[in-house]
Amino acid sequence: MPCSCSHKNAESLSMPDKTQMIQVNGANGLNGANGLNGTNGINGANGANGHNNHPGEAQHRNPYGPRASDFLNNISNFSIIESTLREGEQFANAFFDTKTKIAIAKALDAFGVEYIELTSPAASEQSRADCEAICKLGLKAKILTHIRCHMDDARIAVETGVDGVDVVIGTSSFLREFSHGKDMTYITKTAIEVITFVKSKGIEVRFSSEDSFRSDLVDLLSIYQTVDKIGVNRVGIADTVGCANPRQVYDLVRTLRGVVGCDIEIHLHNDTGMAIANAYCALEAGATHIDTSVLGIGERVGITPLGGLVACLYAANPEYVKAKYNLPMLRELENLVAEAVEVNVPFMNPITGYCAFTHKAGIHAKAILNNPSTYEILKPEDFGLTRYVSIGHRLTGWNAVKSRVEQLGLNLTDDQVKDATAKIKELADVRTQSMDDVDSLLRIYHSGIQSGELAVGQKEALDRLLQQHRETSRERQQPEAVAAAA
Amino acid sequence: MPCSCSHKNAESLSMPDKTQMIQVNGANGLNGANGLNGTNGINGANGANGHNNHPGEAQHRNPYGPRASDFLNNISNFSIIESTLREGEQFANAFFDTKTKIAIAKALDAFGVEYIELTSPAASEQSRADCEAICKLGLKAKILTHIRCHMDDARIAVETGVDGVDVVIGTSSFLREFSHGKDMTYITKTAIEVITFVKSKGIEVRFSSEDSFRSDLVDLLSIYQTVDKIGVNRVGIADTVGCANPRQVYDLVRTLRGVVGCDIEIHLHNDTGMAIANAYCALEAGATHIDTSVLGIGERVGITPLGGLVACLYAANPEYVKAKYNLPMLRELENLVAEAVEVNVPFMNPITGYCAFTHKAGIHAKAILNNPSTYEILKPEDFGLTRYVSIGHRLTGWNAVKSRVEQLGLNLTDDQVKDATAKIKELADVRTQSMDDVDSLLRIYHSGIQSGELAVGQKEALDRLLQQHRETSRERQQPEAVAAAA
Repeated sequence: MPCSCSHKNAESLSMPDKTQMIQVNGANGLNGANGLNGTNGINGANGANGHNNHPGEAQHRNPYGPRASDFLNNISNFSIIESTLREGEQFANAFFDTKTKIAIAKALDAFGVEYIELTSPAASEQSRADCEAICKLGLKAKILTHIRCHMDDARIAVETGVDGVDVVIGTSSFLREFSHGKDMTYITKTAIEVITFVKSKGIEVRFSSEDSFRSDLVDLLSIYQTVDKIGVNRVGIADTVGCANPRQVYDLVRTLRGVVGCDIEIHLHNDTGMAIANAYCALEAGATHIDTSVLGIGERVGITPLGGLVACLYAANPEYVKAKYNLPMLRELENLVAEAVEVNVPFMNPITGYCAFTHKAGIHAKAILNNPSTYEILKPEDFGLTRYVSIGHRLTGWNAVKSRVEQLGLNLTDDQVKDATAKIKELADVRTQSMDDVDSLLRIYHSGIQSGELAVGQKEALDRLLQQHRETSRERQQPEAVAAAA
Repeated sequence: MPCSCSHKNAESLSMPDKTQMIQVNGANGLNGANGLNGTNGINGANGANGHNNHPGEAQHRNPYGPRASDFLNNISNFSIIESTLREGEQFANAFFDTKTKIAIAKALDAFGVEYIELTSPAASEQSRADCEAICKLGLKAKILTHIRCHMDDARIAVETGVDGVDVVIGTSSFLREFSHGKDMTYITKTAIEVITFVKSKGIEVRFSSEDSFRSDLVDLLSIYQTVDKIGVNRVGIADTVGCANPRQVYDLVRTLRGVVGCDIEIHLHNDTGMAIANAYCALEAGATHIDTSVLGIGERVGITPLGGLVACLYAANPEYVKAKYNLPMLRELENLVAEAVEVNVPFMNPITGYCAFTHKAGIHAKAILNNPSTYEILKPEDFGLTRYVSIGHRLTGWNAVKSRVEQLGLNLTDDQVKDATAKIKELADVRTQSMDDVDSLLRIYHSGIQSGELAVGQKEALDRLLQQHRETSRERQQPEAVAAAA
C-alpha cells in the first residue's frame, strides 16, 4: 500500500477511509452498564480524572488537579488574545481581504475568544480601513491592534475605535543592535510616552518587549516595573524567535509575577514545536493572557495554535474550557482559516487531526471499547467529533473483533472470535482489510459455524468458504463476463 | 486571494511561490563584513548563543546553557529510540510492506538514530519475518522489538536476532481494570520472569509501564526499583494517553532518577501538542532515551516527532546535535515516511515546514537581513535548507526593499526607497505582489529617477510610468492582438 505519490489532494487526506473502521459512540452501548461514555469518563465534576468514581481509589493522587503550592496557577483563569488577524497575517501564505477578515473575526467571536488582535492600522491604508470596519461589528470580543512603540503609530491606532492597543519594542541586544538601534533609556522614555497617551484615550494598553528570552533580565524587569507603575493594563513577554523551553518560561513568568501587579500576556513562537507547552507553563506560573492564532499561523512556523492550547487546557479542566468556548466550532474555524491561507489542516493536529480519535493497536482497541478514558484524555463528542476503532489490520486484537461481531448481531464463542481474528491478521499481512472485508469474513465464518461446514482451527474449510464467496460475488458483479467465459 | 478551495494538491502546497521572495544566503553577502551567515550567528563554539562574539556583552546570561544546578540534565547526552516501525505502524494510515520497512530502517540508520524499534514479532507472521530481515541488514543502529510483558511474546522476540527487547505493561488503574485485568503482584512477578529470561539471552531489556502518569506513584516506583535491582537495562515511562504536561514530566523523571540506577526512557503521546516539550523536560530531569517517530506518526495524533525533537535539542546545543545526526537528511526521511503513509508534511512542521525559514513582516525582514540570528534560532543551512524574505505584501518595510534594491544593483537614496516602498504597500493592499512585480516597480522607479521624469512624492508621475510599462509589456506579449485593436 505504500503509495508512490504522497500528493493526493487534501479532500482525500482529510477524509480517511472510515469504511475500515468501527464508529464508536455512546449510542452503541456496546458494554451495557459499563457503556463507552459512562460515568467513569475523564470529565467528572471534580475535574479531569474519574478516579472519584472508584470508591476504593479515592485516595489516589489526581495528577491534573492544581497543586497545593500552585497559588499562582492560572490554568483555570485566563483569556485568549487571538492574533490570526495580526500574527496570522505575517504567515507567508496569508493575504486576507476585508470580507475574509470579517468572516474570521465573526467566527473567532462566536467561538468565544476574549480578544481579537488586528494588524497595525499604520501598516497600510487598507489595514486601517479593515481595523475600523471590524471595530464597528459590535462583537463581544474586545478588539486590539498591535503597533510599534512609537507615537506616530499610537496616534493612528487610537482613532480606529479599538478597545485597546498592544505596544511592542525589541529589548534584546540582538534587536537593539540589528533592528531599531535604540538603548534602554530611549526605550523606557518612549514606552512611558506612548502608554500615557493611549491611557489618556480611555482604552486598554499593553506594553511588550520583543525577544524577551534573549533580553537582559534586569533591563526587562526594570522596564516592566516602570510601566506597571504608570498603570499599563498588561505587560507582555514574547518569545519572538521560538527559542524558549517550558521551565525557562515558567521561571521568567514567575519572576515577573513578583515584580508587577498588572496582567501578564505571553506570545510564543513555535520554531522548536514547544509553543503549546510553553503557554501551559506560563499559565502555571501566573500569566493571565495567551496569544494564539488559528492553526498557529504566523511568521515562519507561527505561534501557539488555538486548537492545541484548547486541547491542553481542556485536558486540565474540561468543565472550565467547555463553559468558556464553543468547542464544536473549532473544526469549522480551522477549516475557514486553512482555506483562506491555502493550507491543509495538519494530519496530526490536536483534536481535529483526522486520526485524533482513531484507535488501532489491538491492546488499545480492547481497552477503548471497555472505557474510552483508558486511552483518551479528550472526549471527541465535546468537540462534535466521533471516535473510531480500526480493526482490519495485522495489529488488531480479538477483543476489538468481538465487539464488531456483537455489533453485527452474530453469535460466536471467544475461541471462534480468536480463530476469525487469526484469519483477519493473515489477510491483513498482505493488504489492509476494509470494514466490508472484515464484515464479510465474520459473516462467512458465522454461517460456516452455523451450517456445520466450519469449526475452530479448520483453516482449509475457511479458505474454501471464502473462495466460494469471492466467486459468487464476482458472478453477481459481472454476470455477462462470467457467462461468456463459461 | 482567499481561495474558495483549500484542497490544492500537496505538490503546490509544499512548493510555495518563492518568486515572491528574496532568497537570502551567505553568498549574497548583503552586508559586507556583517554578512548574513557571519560569526555573530547562533552557533558559536560555546553553544547556542552568539553573545560571546560581542566583547562588551560577554557578561550576558546565556539562556540556553545548562544551569549550575542542573547536574541531572541530559540535553547534551541522550539516545533516540526511533519507533516509526512500531508506534508508527499503529498510525491509522500506516501499512508498511517489507520493502518499505527496510527503506525506512536504512534511512533512519543513515540519519544516525541510536535505536530502531520494530513491531512485535508476535503481531503477525509477516511482522516476525520483517523483524528478522531488518536484524540481518547489519545497520549501525541497534534493533529493538516491542512486546507485551508476557513469556509467549518474549520467547518469539529473542529468536528474531534483535539487540534488545522493549517490554511494556499497563500499570494505571484504568488499564488494570479495563485492559488486562491484572494486579501489581501479578505484574511484578511476570516482569521479573520476562526480564530474567531476556537477559539470559545476552540482549538488552527495557521494562516500561503504560499510562504511567495515571498510575499510582508508589506502585510505579516500587516496580521500577524491583526491575532495576534484577538488572534491567532501562526503565520506561509512557504517557500513553498524552495527558502529561512539562513540569509533571520533569517531576516524575526526576523522582525516578533518584530511585533507579539504570537508564530511563520516555514515550510521550501528543494529544495536547506537548510531546516535544515533554521530551525536552524529561531530558532536563535525567532521562537518557527518547522515543520518537518520523512526523510523530502513531496511535491517534501520535508521539514526539523526530524532527521536532531535533529542532529543540539543536536550539539547545547545535554542535552536539550536528555531530550526532545527519541533519540535511531530515527532509528526505520525512518525505519518505509521508509518502508511505499518504500524508502531507504539516505546513507548520519545525525545520521542514515550507515556511519555517520565510520572513515576512517589515520589522523582521530588516533585522534578518542585518543578522539572521535576530529572528532565527535554527540555521537553515545546517539542514540543507534556505532562508527567504518575502517583500511583496502590505506588511513589508523599506529596509527589506532596500536590500532588494542593492541586490538588483540599483542606486536609490533612502528617501527614494521609502517612496517606492509606499507604492509596493499600496499595490499589495489590493493583491500580493510577486518578486517580478516588485523588481519591475523598482527598476521603473530607478529609471524614472535617472531620467528626471520622477522625484520623491510624485505619485502621479510614478503611476504614469507604471501604466506605460504595463502597456509596453502587453504589446510585447500580444503584438498581433494589439495591432488588430489599433
